[in-house]
Amino acid sequence: MIKVTSFRWVPSFAQGISRDMRVRWALEEAGLAYEEQPIGFEDRTTANHRRRQPFGQIPVFEEDGLTLFESGAIVLHIAERSTALMPSDPKARARAKTWMFAALNSVEPDIENLAAIDLFHAEEEWAKQRRPGAVEAARKRLMDLSAWLDGREYLEDRFTAADLLMTTVLRFLRHTDLVAEIPALDAYRLRCEARPAFRKALADHMALVSANAPTGAAGTNQAARHSPLTN
Amino acid sequence: MIKVTSFRWVPSFAQGISRDMRVRWALEEAGLAYEEQPIGFEDRTTANHRRRQPFGQIPVFEEDGLTLFESGAIVLHIAERSTALMPSDPKARARAKTWMFAALNSVEPDIENLAAIDLFHAEEEWAKQRRPGAVEAARKRLMDLSAWLDGREYLEDRFTAADLLMTTVLRFLRHTDLVAEIPALDAYRLRCEARPAFRKALADHMALVSANAPTGAAGTNQAARHSPLTN
Repeated sequence: MIKVTSFRWVPSFAQGISRDMRVRWALEEAGLAYEEQPIGFEDRTTANHRRRQPFGQIPVFEEDGLTLFESGAIVLHIAERSTALMPSDPKARARAKTWMFAALNSVEPDIENLAAIDLFHAEEEWAKQRRPGAVEAARKRLMDLSAWLDGREYLEDRFTAADLLMTTVLRFLRHTDLVAEIPALDAYRLRCEARPAFRKALADHMALVSANAPTGAAGTNQAARHSPLTN
Repeated sequence: MIKVTSFRWVPSFAQGISRDMRVRWALEEAGLAYEEQPIGFEDRTTANHRRRQPFGQIPVFEEDGLTLFESGAIVLHIAERSTALMPSDPKARARAKTWMFAALNSVEPDIENLAAIDLFHAEEEWAKQRRPGAVEAARKRLMDLSAWLDGREYLEDRFTAADLLMTTVLRFLRHTDLVAEIPALDAYRLRCEARPAFRKALADHMALVSANAPTGAAGTNQAARHSPLTN
């Protein structure tokens, strides 16, 4: 049985976009059942968790003695065994992998920088000064991506794990209008989010964090100390 | 014949660390010959280049009708056909891929942020204010990585494509003492850089950029307008 470790609760800004969403979505697309292994923020520094995730993050994937971390690597691992996430033709598989890395290594960094400014540093003076430049950098990536998607439904001929990852990257900007300002890009995001596998993954993720919501101010205090986006 | 597109020249801060180095190194480890396809910065925006690389970056890998971009994806593609870069055991391969993504998606972003502050924004007020926090974020990743490497020669049992990528990430900090301050991490970097395949890749990269060095102030002007690290 596949086991997926995620936080049992995350603050509202991270609900629906913490990186266990990627793994849940991929497993739903592939039709693979899994067991949730929820942990708390306080477990990030335990020796047991560090052995499984050297950077103290989530998600972790475990199956049959194999432990994997990094959401991108886990999604790739799942995609390699399911044609729902990657075609069988070798060249098409290589193209899908190219776009998986593009999502995480070319698009995500600039988007994550802007999200970090807005979500964790908004009141700091450097962040106020830096924000216009960070918006410009993120928008440049989005425009390049939109230019590629012109006339395409997906990054390549069909939905793949690369579209899954790219959609989760675009979702990091949900607190802004940057994606909505580019209709073709917003339509692409909505097309991917309309998939039943995404909706099931989101529902399961939300059910877990809702069931474990702290009462009172505890949640707010925890949110200030952690960055559950950065997994 | 494999063709690798890279910049025919990059300014000194990017020499030896632009991302074609990853692909060159992987091809040397795998013993695969390739043909250089040098381009200029001015080619980044051409329709022909955008078709091959939608974000206008380098490197691009071409072979037998297949075009790949993203250095991580290209290194993975090469590693999948060479046991010099990945073991044949399926679980060990999955672990190597987990560390490939860790290098590019967990370690590189914080290191790239610090490098960008130092190399492109050093004189801006926000960068001066942000730098201590950026150093702290980068150092946290390095300490986590060093803790994992304690007692290990490589990220897993043997050298893999993940060590190749991680080493290239650490090299982005060569203008600082951050890696040297952690002896185990510096020893790891030096161990990987001592490999004949790395030295051959670096020599070929340097031979190309040296042969195409602009004369006078042209290079300085170009350097100010571009970020050849960001590929």
